[in-house]
Amino acid sequence: MNWLDIVSLESNSDESQKRGDHLYLQIVRSIKDAIRSGKLPLESRLPTNRELASLLNIDRSTVSRAYLELSEVGLIESHVGRGTYVKSLVEVSKTGSAESNAGTSSGFGSSNQPRPMVWAEKFSRASQTVNAIVSRQAPASGLQDDTITFGGGIPTEEFYPSAHFQRIVSEMVGQGDVDRMFSYSPAEGDAELRQEVIKYLAEQSMQVLHDELLIVSGSQQGIDLVSTALVDDNDVVIVEDPSYFWAICNFRARHARLIGVPVDEDGMRMDVLETVLKRQKAKLIYVMPAFQNPTGATMSQARRQQLLALAREYQVPIFEDNFVGELVYDGERRKPLRAEPGAQDIVIHQGTFSKALCPGLRLGWLVAPQEVMTRLRAAKRSSDLTTNSMAQVVLCKYLQEGLYKDHLEHVRGAYKQRLHVLVETLEKHVSPITFNAEGRHRGPQRLTWTVPKGGLFVWAKLPARLSAREFLNYAEREGVTFSPGELFFVGADQPEYLRLCFIQTDEETIKEGVKRLAKALSAFFADVSRARSKESAWSKRGSERVLI
Amino acid sequence: MNWLDIVSLESNSDESQKRGDHLYLQIVRSIKDAIRSGKLPLESRLPTNRELASLLNIDRSTVSRAYLELSEVGLIESHVGRGTYVKSLVEVSKTGSAESNAGTSSGFGSSNQPRPMVWAEKFSRASQTVNAIVSRQAPASGLQDDTITFGGGIPTEEFYPSAHFQRIVSEMVGQGDVDRMFSYSPAEGDAELRQEVIKYLAEQSMQVLHDELLIVSGSQQGIDLVSTALVDDNDVVIVEDPSYFWAICNFRARHARLIGVPVDEDGMRMDVLETVLKRQKAKLIYVMPAFQNPTGATMSQARRQQLLALAREYQVPIFEDNFVGELVYDGERRKPLRAEPGAQDIVIHQGTFSKALCPGLRLGWLVAPQEVMTRLRAAKRSSDLTTNSMAQVVLCKYLQEGLYKDHLEHVRGAYKQRLHVLVETLEKHVSPITFNAEGRHRGPQRLTWTVPKGGLFVWAKLPARLSAREFLNYAEREGVTFSPGELFFVGADQPEYLRLCFIQTDEETIKEGVKRLAKALSAFFADVSRARSKESAWSKRGSERVLI
Repeated sequence: MNWLDIVSLESNSDESQKRGDHLYLQIVRSIKDAIRSGKLPLESRLPTNRELASLLNIDRSTVSRAYLELSEVGLIESHVGRGTYVKSLVEVSKTGSAESNAGTSSGFGSSNQPRPMVWAEKFSRASQTVNAIVSRQAPASGLQDDTITFGGGIPTEEFYPSAHFQRIVSEMVGQGDVDRMFSYSPAEGDAELRQEVIKYLAEQSMQVLHDELLIVSGSQQGIDLVSTALVDDNDVVIVEDPSYFWAICNFRARHARLIGVPVDEDGMRMDVLETVLKRQKAKLIYVMPAFQNPTGATMSQARRQQLLALAREYQVPIFEDNFVGELVYDGERRKPLRAEPGAQDIVIHQGTFSKALCPGLRLGWLVAPQEVMTRLRAAKRSSDLTTNSMAQVVLCKYLQEGLYKDHLEHVRGAYKQRLHVLVETLEKHVSPITFNAEGRHRGPQRLTWTVPKGGLFVWAKLPARLSAREFLNYAEREGVTFSPGELFFVGADQPEYLRLCFIQTDEETIKEGVKRLAKALSAFFADVSRARSKESAWSKRGSERVLI
Repeated sequence: MNWLDIVSLESNSDESQKRGDHLYLQIVRSIKDAIRSGKLPLESRLPTNRELASLLNIDRSTVSRAYLELSEVGLIESHVGRGTYVKSLVEVSKTGSAESNAGTSSGFGSSNQPRPMVWAEKFSRASQTVNAIVSRQAPASGLQDDTITFGGGIPTEEFYPSAHFQRIVSEMVGQGDVDRMFSYSPAEGDAELRQEVIKYLAEQSMQVLHDELLIVSGSQQGIDLVSTALVDDNDVVIVEDPSYFWAICNFRARHARLIGVPVDEDGMRMDVLETVLKRQKAKLIYVMPAFQNPTGATMSQARRQQLLALAREYQVPIFEDNFVGELVYDGERRKPLRAEPGAQDIVIHQGTFSKALCPGLRLGWLVAPQEVMTRLRAAKRSSDLTTNSMAQVVLCKYLQEGLYKDHLEHVRGAYKQRLHVLVETLEKHVSPITFNAEGRHRGPQRLTWTVPKGGLFVWAKLPARLSAREFLNYAEREGVTFSPGELFFVGADQPEYLRLCFIQTDEETIKEGVKRLAKALSAFFADVSRARSKESAWSKRGSERVLI
């Protein structure tokens, strides 16, 4: 969020001089405008008094006065220790009656248009939910250009199959094979591509019939369609906790009741799942058995069997999101859950080409029992009719030529090496071994992490009760970024986690990124110590959490 | 629906001889299986006794007995005069308790898998709705290969910009411009493509800011996102009646209450709209002001002004679907509703490249006020993250090179000519002028139609109370097909309409198609006359409608 764009002070302009505007009123007006225009969505966080004052180079009391004014009309709310948030899009006049912020804005109201549209009252419940969630995830703006990112999870451009794709497009158009590329494909996807995906899945021990397969515009659409077909208001959806941000968002947008089951190194905990299933009538269990997002955990064979048995016993379908199943770096490749005996009628499986190949094609697939597939296909048509033909046809040819296997082998090697470099450099700079009279030993563990056997992510952890979100501010100042783990939790707030994606930059950049992280950690811990000594000098009451 | 696939009789097999199966039990079993497997979705129509008996070459009483059995277990229901439909996916045992059809099927139940998943109970309300609607629209299978289609509305392959696209892909990949093509584009769409769309809209007198534009995966996704952002359970959505099939489907899937406002030659009737708005608190007015689907009507300038005024007065946003605004053949091109003064804050506008360029790209756009756009963008991310990059980048280059204008001019000319040929041939073969002693006169008007000033469709009508759905059977036997108008109505059942798409075949094919239509009409009217004389020989009671 670029606050200098949002809060524009005109202290030097003649206009404002004439109006005799107080600085605090300019801040109030800017923030009202930003809320009205949607730049500041519901629940977005405002800078602290100190931050905004320093940014605008004005006195903190001016900011306080502006925030007080905004609080009084109900637009924002401050929580001690948590910060200040946008609470409402609608202004409440001080006499108590609600009044739309849009309606009172000076931007509208010419005599020809007596009733500007008041949109704030129009949005659906789903929209309120999604908007609030998306605004949490909004990436920090104002990052330096040379910021190194461990955030997100996007494969790197250098491995995109562009040369092959160029040749394929040329060949196909040259051969006059254009109808397939530019007309509607069937709702279920291009017939030849489906054949290729079925072959590809057969190599992973999955037997899939044509009527059980649907090509989708990336896994996110897969999630959206499964939600549409199965999830009603108040349905219980069980997810790993933590889980994939956009899956959580989509299920919440359906007003599902999400129940998070903790994940350990063997995947979702089956003892907890069983307890949940005993107590709750659930609609769906959403899991990522291979290299889970965000923890990187792989579900053990025993857990897989337990999961299938529980699903069958309690009659709750499993939605397997196999987003990075192909990206194995250590140990043998495990077949998908859907390939287990007896899983066909109980598992909806999905995969994608976005992570192992390239994301811009927006191509993935869903596998489901035929009677479910009828519903998913109908949902697909209602959602966007069909998937982009050009991307499907080009990818199909690429698969037919057998190029994907080579590609997978190549990126597996490269990503494995990147993971190795990340872990090695973390060991070196974040947990350095020092030598003293007693011999070698490690310094204080400021960050711990687990090493995944595949996928995209290293899941790391600060010492208990420290906030990765706060640490992120230090990291970004040093020119490095990551995804704070709190985005991924559905249950108890666990602020100390961070997710590091290791596939999207080369090895040298990873090394430099870790050095910056280490530097940021030092600064962060120095402030933590200062804050702690201050806190102990104060009193025993107040929050247990260390807030920087 | 291929009924010979669904109902397979094994009267000659040893197996069935041994089981001593009655024929009617085989029919019962086949239909149960088809319901269980999703081949026969909820509310799909079964053949009449007579049709199925003739198809299977068995006695009608055998079919009656099978249908009775299926009715008794609650799976199907017959309505006199309307036919027989799938009523439930779950079988009710004759003692009264419900029992899943899947659970009793012999396909499951080995001792290792004691509880097969019973999917019928899992589907969401949205899925029930969509599934029922989609099954109505299911295209007839078993059409001959040389069937001429006036159904659907798909631009013809010969005008696809394939050669340009091939060159553009080669050039871009050759220049190493691959990141943009194969990585994620921003949720709101590729920045350069958005710039081109904004320029293109400016040529249509629409001033659009960057923050007001979203690239979507075709208009259907536009509808889906607007639904997500605005429509809650039981919200009133006003549509033209008749309207676009998939828009109706999508709004119904949200459990909106649809209210249809009739369309005449000047578009949606504003007197009716005002009455509706007075009585109902509505959420949205969905309209196609240019060459409406399916009627081809264009909204007059006076109605446009009234619509904007009413929307403002009653605070109901307008959703303008401008799917074929560019395809003008007669009269001057009208600017979109969104380009009218004062429309910016009240109209959500959408357009697409699927109709005027080619459908396989799946690219369209939404324009909305910024605060609405924030919501639409969030809905987009929750739905499928972003739109296919390759298609966006290629289209962007195509627009940058100024090729779209030439293309539009070219297809306008071609489609105008096709419309002319369709109308001329209809005049000639369907309403031929004959000469007798009193001079020239037209034969009986078996089909009437309105000639649109642009777009894709001619809207035609049989004499009152005849069913275009029934006529379709005759047409398909002659090797020609169209879309029965009943698909598009939301209010009163108006069976006599049919929609003819004239852009998707060349002029010679159109002529041949009309000849076939004329032949089918003769056969249809011969049977109508026979049925009418029989009816009058019977009694006065029963349905007013002539059912063939």
